[in-house]
Amino acid sequence: MKQKIYFSIFICFLFCSCQSQPNDSLIISSIYKNALTDTTSYSQLRYLTTYAKGRLCGSPTAAAAVEYMRQQLQQMQLDTVYLQDVMVKNWQRGEKETASMHSTNLGHQNVDVCAIGGSIGTGAEGISAEIVEIQSFEQLTALGEKNIKGKIVFFNRAMDASLQNTFAAYNGAAAQRSQGAIRAATLGAIGVVVRSLTLQINQFPHTGIMRYDESITKIPAISICTRDAELLSKWMKKDTKLLFTFKTSCTQMPEVLSYNVIAELRGTEFPQQIIVVGGHLDSWDICEGAHDDGAGCMHSIEVLRLYKVLNIRPKHTIRVVLYMDEEYAQRGGAKYAEIVKQKNEKHLFALESDRGGLTPKGFTFQCEDSVYQKLAKFKTYFKPYDISLFEKGYGGVDIFPLGELGIPLIGFVPDSQRYFDFHHCANDIFANINQRELQMGSATITSLVYLIDKYGY
Amino acid sequence: MKQKIYFSIFICFLFCSCQSQPNDSLIISSIYKNALTDTTSYSQLRYLTTYAKGRLCGSPTAAAAVEYMRQQLQQMQLDTVYLQDVMVKNWQRGEKETASMHSTNLGHQNVDVCAIGGSIGTGAEGISAEIVEIQSFEQLTALGEKNIKGKIVFFNRAMDASLQNTFAAYNGAAAQRSQGAIRAATLGAIGVVVRSLTLQINQFPHTGIMRYDESITKIPAISICTRDAELLSKWMKKDTKLLFTFKTSCTQMPEVLSYNVIAELRGTEFPQQIIVVGGHLDSWDICEGAHDDGAGCMHSIEVLRLYKVLNIRPKHTIRVVLYMDEEYAQRGGAKYAEIVKQKNEKHLFALESDRGGLTPKGFTFQCEDSVYQKLAKFKTYFKPYDISLFEKGYGGVDIFPLGELGIPLIGFVPDSQRYFDFHHCANDIFANINQRELQMGSATITSLVYLIDKYGY
Repeated sequence: MKQKIYFSIFICFLFCSCQSQPNDSLIISSIYKNALTDTTSYSQLRYLTTYAKGRLCGSPTAAAAVEYMRQQLQQMQLDTVYLQDVMVKNWQRGEKETASMHSTNLGHQNVDVCAIGGSIGTGAEGISAEIVEIQSFEQLTALGEKNIKGKIVFFNRAMDASLQNTFAAYNGAAAQRSQGAIRAATLGAIGVVVRSLTLQINQFPHTGIMRYDESITKIPAISICTRDAELLSKWMKKDTKLLFTFKTSCTQMPEVLSYNVIAELRGTEFPQQIIVVGGHLDSWDICEGAHDDGAGCMHSIEVLRLYKVLNIRPKHTIRVVLYMDEEYAQRGGAKYAEIVKQKNEKHLFALESDRGGLTPKGFTFQCEDSVYQKLAKFKTYFKPYDISLFEKGYGGVDIFPLGELGIPLIGFVPDSQRYFDFHHCANDIFANINQRELQMGSATITSLVYLIDKYGY
Repeated sequence: MKQKIYFSIFICFLFCSCQSQPNDSLIISSIYKNALTDTTSYSQLRYLTTYAKGRLCGSPTAAAAVEYMRQQLQQMQLDTVYLQDVMVKNWQRGEKETASMHSTNLGHQNVDVCAIGGSIGTGAEGISAEIVEIQSFEQLTALGEKNIKGKIVFFNRAMDASLQNTFAAYNGAAAQRSQGAIRAATLGAIGVVVRSLTLQINQFPHTGIMRYDESITKIPAISICTRDAELLSKWMKKDTKLLFTFKTSCTQMPEVLSYNVIAELRGTEFPQQIIVVGGHLDSWDICEGAHDDGAGCMHSIEVLRLYKVLNIRPKHTIRVVLYMDEEYAQRGGAKYAEIVKQKNEKHLFALESDRGGLTPKGFTFQCEDSVYQKLAKFKTYFKPYDISLFEKGYGGVDIFPLGELGIPLIGFVPDSQRYFDFHHCANDIFANINQRELQMGSATITSLVYLIDKYGY
């Protein structure tokens, strides 16, 4: 009851007064208070990660995710909820992968691996060959065809733990996963084993996307958990003739019709000007997709829920887009931007949350300096919530094509320390979501949307 | 090898150059790099939480913790390592507590509880009575003796989830645990049940300290897990004559000689001026004491390790104190301050880490404005590490008596969102420590110590 009176006070402030700063602080406070005490998004994420886990684009659970989110949005009494067609690839992992190392003096040891997303399979026989450990592409090139041909290449470059930002550490090592098979095949390798991209030493192999070059022989690629990458490296030092064997049965199936899930709250003053907020609905097949990116989807629809429940009416149209296929071929983001361009829709800005449901630090702005300078001024409103990162930087994978249309991009930035414990592996589960961290993210994003909607830039 | 060359460069910078800001940035960078890639503190914490868990003051595992940390410090080739006598209380929980609710129409239900630290036991028979739910002391007073006498009081005030800072939420509800038994006994209650102080709804009862007033009858007090607090409240609404029963067998044993563990790195210019950095070595008996406060102990000894390994020589003496008995009667902090006063030792400042091994946000400063203004200027050095909280605020429980001697206090502040998931309950275990978050804390504390030692205030 008290709460109702409280909200009525807000509404008075909002619509009857001169919209001075203290009112904004009060509204932002109400956004945080409601977000931190409402469990809707946490419950929705539990459902999504339980009944639509492993929702790689093209999979049945991706279809379940689309339908679940559509229904959830439909129940929110928004102005529009619709699906946007996206044709997606349909890569399937097949049977559980197996791998082992064999040494004449050390014996036989199975290791935990998974196929890297997009890889071809090995065929029913698997592949078996001597293995060569590599730390960098330069080292690979230096070894040359005579040392690589007919062998399996083991890319064992670890993420650099000395970097404070784990995304920087990830970016420093990710090329071996995405480009490794091309580089190794160029020199005649028959397969690739890549050290998992995590800072932990554990039993979870991490997947992710890889590329092939149509002009170069396609060779199968797997990721090995860090525990076994360490072991493999140790054995290789003791036995330079170590044999490595692995078997995968991945296949590319025909493309599938899937969807971006879209919902809107129409603007009262500038309904033709759109604020787009989103995360991606697909996940890798081997996890629940809780942090990547169920959390980002929840952050996004919380913006709409908070506007509704607090009875805030946006000036601009707020559109939530849950993009399909960020992980595999980024078709959802591309399709959304294509339609924006086709319809010549005006967008005020695009915001993406795709760095996990962890304690928020702030935002990075991918836009012109003049726009950034104006947006960065909103930072003062976030001081009570310990949100202080307002820097120029990357927006997000799904909204990247919108940036090419000149739309300012905003990336939501949570704390990165734990993110790669979960990223693209079986450890990305709902149990590793902290409700308050998730809720703090929603409140932070909603508050920034509120300020930009109200004041523009 | 590369690393050695790197360190030599630092030493040159440190001792041969004009000590300009860029060198400091380089040294701080080396502190972070080393902390983030060295696993010493994580391994030490694993040992401490495995072999000296439940190390409540007076317990055998508290003795083990003292001896383990003494040995670890002894191996570090510091200038001094010694133990400081502290007589501590020896409260013992006794048998596993039992509790249940009985309703003529709803049936019988066991609930998960634990005795609150310092409580008397119920005796072998336990106690059984009607139960009255209370949200505040005002409500208790209003109900008065006629409604309370002979009954058990159930303090069910939840922590306020709408507050961003969970310590503020904790402080708003903690009095019912610490003062509840006194307040209830004043009105003739025979026992107290307190809702666990956590924002989660789960199965872990949270303990903590409570007080008695020697002039008021002592009644036994237990804490009930939030899951069962919710259930109890629900049953009470359906049955106003609900009977609650609990049994505890806590006892006060004779006081025990224990120790603060102290180690020093002597200052090169002002050896008589001391910088003290610490955490508390004791923990509650029902947990491993990983976040509270094994992490703070590790943060503290990492300062010494980092100074040693990076060959930084402090101007002032850096003294680490691992205080005994923060949880029960704060005897370690009191004893340390007493000796400081007795010896008239000059302290530059005292820093405490006792808010968990979570991602660092910054520091709070409990000191005069003029000192704060100078210390707050160091904030710029922490920008690359996303550390931005430099505010006036609380120092810490163990160093509080030093504040009364006029010594500036600094509290280390990590992110608070998850802290009360672990605090004082069986969930405070090593498995809930993230290595990088712990390491980031050590680097952050060491860097501030480095700057204040070098530039003073």
